[in-house]
Amino acid sequence: MAKNEITFQTIGTIHSPHQELAGMPIQPAAAVGIEGTVVLDLSLQEGLKDLEEFSHVILVYYFHQAKTPDLLVKPFLDEVKHGVFATRAPRRPNGIGISVVKLLTVEGNILHIENVDILDGTPLLDIKPYIPDFDEQEEVKIGWLESSRGKKNQKMSDDRFLRG
Amino acid sequence: MAKNEITFQTIGTIHSPHQELAGMPIQPAAAVGIEGTVVLDLSLQEGLKDLEEFSHVILVYYFHQAKTPDLLVKPFLDEVKHGVFATRAPRRPNGIGISVVKLLTVEGNILHIENVDILDGTPLLDIKPYIPDFDEQEEVKIGWLESSRGKKNQKMSDDRFLRG
Repeated sequence: MAKNEITFQTIGTIHSPHQELAGMPIQPAAAVGIEGTVVLDLSLQEGLKDLEEFSHVILVYYFHQAKTPDLLVKPFLDEVKHGVFATRAPRRPNGIGISVVKLLTVEGNILHIENVDILDGTPLLDIKPYIPDFDEQEEVKIGWLESSRGKKNQKMSDDRFLRG
Repeated sequence: MAKNEITFQTIGTIHSPHQELAGMPIQPAAAVGIEGTVVLDLSLQEGLKDLEEFSHVILVYYFHQAKTPDLLVKPFLDEVKHGVFATRAPRRPNGIGISVVKLLTVEGNILHIENVDILDGTPLLDIKPYIPDFDEQEEVKIGWLESSRGKKNQKMSDDRFLRG
């Protein structure tokens, strides 16, 4: 393994009604009411203890269907190119995705979730509790997205980031 | 490479005044005013275009100093054990850390950041813009952390998660 490589083991799979990238809501806030499940490897089930008391979780996953990375991308919410690190587009040097979803219930090794903006079959890397004291910020500026605020609920994805 | 393995390439390094885990603030909100830098690999600098217009970024990184994973951990903010996925502790099956930090300026391939709760020398995996419409939730319940709300500003870490 090269000096700068880090290898992770997937810990489960995310299931959702989204079978393809085209037409998918682009973020959880645009996926309100859409339910899915997280199936965690049975061997890790003990790690879910007390998670059910949280209302929201952060899912960390692998963009397994993303095209090869690009440093400049045209995101779904704009018509001009931005640096990929100034977007949430999947074509990143490391295809790591993050979504905050609502946690409905935990049954054994299965999480029932809502507001799912993730492709069916997506490999899971981590589950973290969502904690406003840690994760929320004040006086936020959102750059090029400022002009598209509120647009995201109408916006669906297309296949521009799909692996060719 | 095994079927369930995903290999990433680190894309840079996070620098901070935190030389050791003991005494470090446990989350960015407790690290207010502490400055650091992110040095991105020069080859990826183009990917930072337009990032400076954002006030906050999400850093995704590797807990390179974390002990081997444990499914039940006693987090800094409590005295009893919880499932590791119900905590933000570093001893996770995949040692992926997430912190929202304030972005001060971008100079070439270097990000100047504030509110840094990350160890010096931490390998960087991804940079994402922080977008409240995507990342903030309402009506949040935070489980076992409910009783420790507000405590985190006093709390510093110790070496319980340090690689042995």
